[in-house]
Amino acid sequence: MSFRIRDTDLLGRSGTFSVGGRSVDTPAFLPVIHPVRQLVPGPELLAMGFGAAITNSYISLRNYGHGISERGGIHGVVNYDGILMTDSGGYQVLEYGSIDADPLTMAEYQVEMGSDIAVVLDRPTGISATRERALETVEWTLRAARDTLPVVERTRGRMAWAIPIQGGLHADLVERSAKESAALPYDVYSVGSPVELMNSYRFTDLARLLLTAKRNLPPERPVHLFGAGHPLTMALAVAFGADTFDSASYALFARELRYMTRCGVRNVGELEELPCSCSICSRRTPRELLEMPREEAVGLIARHNLYVLREELLDVRQALHEGRLWEYLMQKTTCHPSLYGVRSLMVEASGDFTEFTRLFKRRALLLFGHEDVHRPELMTAASRARRVSPRGKSITLLIVHSVDVQAAPSAGDDVYFVVPFLGLVPPGLSDVYPFSQNSKPDPTSIDRRVLEETARASADAVSGWGITSAKIVHNGSGWAAEMAGLLASRLTERGIPATVEVSHV
Amino acid sequence: MSFRIRDTDLLGRSGTFSVGGRSVDTPAFLPVIHPVRQLVPGPELLAMGFGAAITNSYISLRNYGHGISERGGIHGVVNYDGILMTDSGGYQVLEYGSIDADPLTMAEYQVEMGSDIAVVLDRPTGISATRERALETVEWTLRAARDTLPVVERTRGRMAWAIPIQGGLHADLVERSAKESAALPYDVYSVGSPVELMNSYRFTDLARLLLTAKRNLPPERPVHLFGAGHPLTMALAVAFGADTFDSASYALFARELRYMTRCGVRNVGELEELPCSCSICSRRTPRELLEMPREEAVGLIARHNLYVLREELLDVRQALHEGRLWEYLMQKTTCHPSLYGVRSLMVEASGDFTEFTRLFKRRALLLFGHEDVHRPELMTAASRARRVSPRGKSITLLIVHSVDVQAAPSAGDDVYFVVPFLGLVPPGLSDVYPFSQNSKPDPTSIDRRVLEETARASADAVSGWGITSAKIVHNGSGWAAEMAGLLASRLTERGIPATVEVSHV
Repeated sequence: MSFRIRDTDLLGRSGTFSVGGRSVDTPAFLPVIHPVRQLVPGPELLAMGFGAAITNSYISLRNYGHGISERGGIHGVVNYDGILMTDSGGYQVLEYGSIDADPLTMAEYQVEMGSDIAVVLDRPTGISATRERALETVEWTLRAARDTLPVVERTRGRMAWAIPIQGGLHADLVERSAKESAALPYDVYSVGSPVELMNSYRFTDLARLLLTAKRNLPPERPVHLFGAGHPLTMALAVAFGADTFDSASYALFARELRYMTRCGVRNVGELEELPCSCSICSRRTPRELLEMPREEAVGLIARHNLYVLREELLDVRQALHEGRLWEYLMQKTTCHPSLYGVRSLMVEASGDFTEFTRLFKRRALLLFGHEDVHRPELMTAASRARRVSPRGKSITLLIVHSVDVQAAPSAGDDVYFVVPFLGLVPPGLSDVYPFSQNSKPDPTSIDRRVLEETARASADAVSGWGITSAKIVHNGSGWAAEMAGLLASRLTERGIPATVEVSHV
Repeated sequence: MSFRIRDTDLLGRSGTFSVGGRSVDTPAFLPVIHPVRQLVPGPELLAMGFGAAITNSYISLRNYGHGISERGGIHGVVNYDGILMTDSGGYQVLEYGSIDADPLTMAEYQVEMGSDIAVVLDRPTGISATRERALETVEWTLRAARDTLPVVERTRGRMAWAIPIQGGLHADLVERSAKESAALPYDVYSVGSPVELMNSYRFTDLARLLLTAKRNLPPERPVHLFGAGHPLTMALAVAFGADTFDSASYALFARELRYMTRCGVRNVGELEELPCSCSICSRRTPRELLEMPREEAVGLIARHNLYVLREELLDVRQALHEGRLWEYLMQKTTCHPSLYGVRSLMVEASGDFTEFTRLFKRRALLLFGHEDVHRPELMTAASRARRVSPRGKSITLLIVHSVDVQAAPSAGDDVYFVVPFLGLVPPGLSDVYPFSQNSKPDPTSIDRRVLEETARASADAVSGWGITSAKIVHNGSGWAAEMAGLLASRLTERGIPATVEVSHV
């Protein structure tokens, strides 16, 4: 097993995961292949670019038993020549109950199947578990992981092993589960419970669960997020640190004639036309899908859904590559109000993001609303700006919409720009990314809260310098006057008397 | 010529435009077909679903002269069997100068070409014109339109005629151009100058130009927006009232190996993978495009760009059909900061939108940020709510996150809900759309400005009732207390003393 990281952005990364002679680019979406009722043949999944998939070991055990190796293992059974992860079937064990499905049995069976990424039999926490019950699932799963270790050691090199992180909505238990899991010699961490959170549209809780786990796991190892492969959650999963995620939604939705779009799901009957360019949709109408035999329509919609998931994945990867995952995830939050809370979590996690978010990019930073004041790139840039402290005890702060390298006063004058979103910019750093390489709404369209938060951040930066007075200069336009007033108040609160002047120069 | 309107939403509408025995669904994107150098053959455009296209009469005149009718007219020359609009070539006339290109000559030539939608020879205003120059273009174009009338009358029934609206950024001149054009017997209004605005990313100015024109044109007739067929501007064009729009961008971008996405444009060399499911992209890599002969790559990218434009168009149409064009356009504004100002313009135009925006929809209203407080549906709903006036002089206002039909107090108590985004909701209207059929961020994720603007709107509504006191009740949570405080202040400002109480019932 190897995991090579190429690019990083926020807590996301792109890279290559290799095991047993096969490789897949990450972040990767793993379509669920049902071991028995397969909707889209394995070779088609591979041809669409899904180089890894996931199937279920418990259902395989019940259906194929120990004869599976004679059928070419699980790759032969499901006719898929990519990397195959095998879910341990914790949910199914809970549901159907079975005494023979103990951790060692399931581990040995996954070896027998020829799994590429086996998962320790877990006890899923779910989202309605009491703290007591959640603790039980954490401890049960950790015990199972320890019991499984002999099999892990015996098969090392041939296959990868994933340890499930439990705890659900109990953050302290997720932390404990992650910390103790991190101490065990597993290759992959797979974070549990997302499906229930997704089904109830609790996307912020989902992101927080992943963030909590991620904060307590070694950053160099891959993280799988169970079930989060949905157009609404893929960007979120990647931004908060998942490298792989799976989902059966493409097939489950298709069976109900539910048609995925990049921003939601529709019944085929609700569509006027098929708004997609894939081979299924570009020459068909919704009516044609509704009038053909249902099984045929289900198969076609499943393929369309896979195309949508693939598009979303490729867009997320490109955003990560360009270092604009923040912008991309912000956009996704406009798909549904339940995603809106993710914005605050992004602001909260900005400190986590800074370490892995490159400051320099080829593209301008795009700035929109007040959350963007807290972009990790701007936090990093601000900490540089703060180090350019004044020589004297008095400073001049020029309110400008954009820094103008030409018009920059000389640094010796203890003059600084204050720019919406960017905050304090020493003229000497004007041409350093992203101070000059950004795009923001025009002056009259900037949200008041952007001005408020810029003023607060700028005052905080200045207050570390031990200065005794500040002169704020603006050009007299409405937004600049407002910004100047806000800044003066924030400075005064911090014990720095500030005057405001208008200069039309 | 006939134009049948099916659905309306904001100032947009869907319908069918028919002329000369051919029909096209609107809103429609008309790809530009160059009369000589054609990048994508006409039959392919038709097969992709582009049932109308636009070409240039001036370039045709220079290249094919009066022999064009022997070649099967312009449809034969460009091998396109859909509705063909012919731009008059105002820009080209300005650029190359030509004494024989007077309005009547160009009108007669468009008849000779077999144009389906001919355009009066215009003098484009552009965006850098002084007021004097702009006035000149308005008057010149109106004069040309009057001079062309004999040809229009002679060919009525066989073809449609479009009159260009000039004035550019001079709103009063756009108004005059639109008003005087509306009085003339033309079939289509085509709004000029968007291309320059788009090239300089002045999207808010573009929307305002269209809004100004639209306010002064008869709503039942079709409006064409020159050049605005771009993934970033299509939703905007439709929302502000354009039925058709054209663009050559698919081809112009392709010639520079520029690859469209739904949210922007990239050089093919910047892409890691091709994030699209169209027949061009689903089996190719960016490298393959870069390594093939350039002309071949240009042709393929042009086709991909057309697929992206088609997807955007279909998504806009579906949003219009579902009555959620507001949500869709809000999403688009997160593609680039230059679009952010469009949000304020949407709020400003909400009064224009209400007339054509259906109140009842099959889908829940999705509410995100403070602009959504001013959604046309909520304005209409609020005016109903205001009519449910209290019996007495004192009212009780219950701050709630969502109206609960079960828990609704009886109407006789002069009790009202106050709900973020929705404002004042009389319990008797609780189950009326959209008071119960909406989705909003969870309580802790609602922007403060939403609370502020809800408080202001609610206080305005109450202040019309002549009441003398108000009791505000909330459940003690942070956001509800803040909302209660804001509401109390707004009421007090309006001369209505208000008390605030906490009730955990």
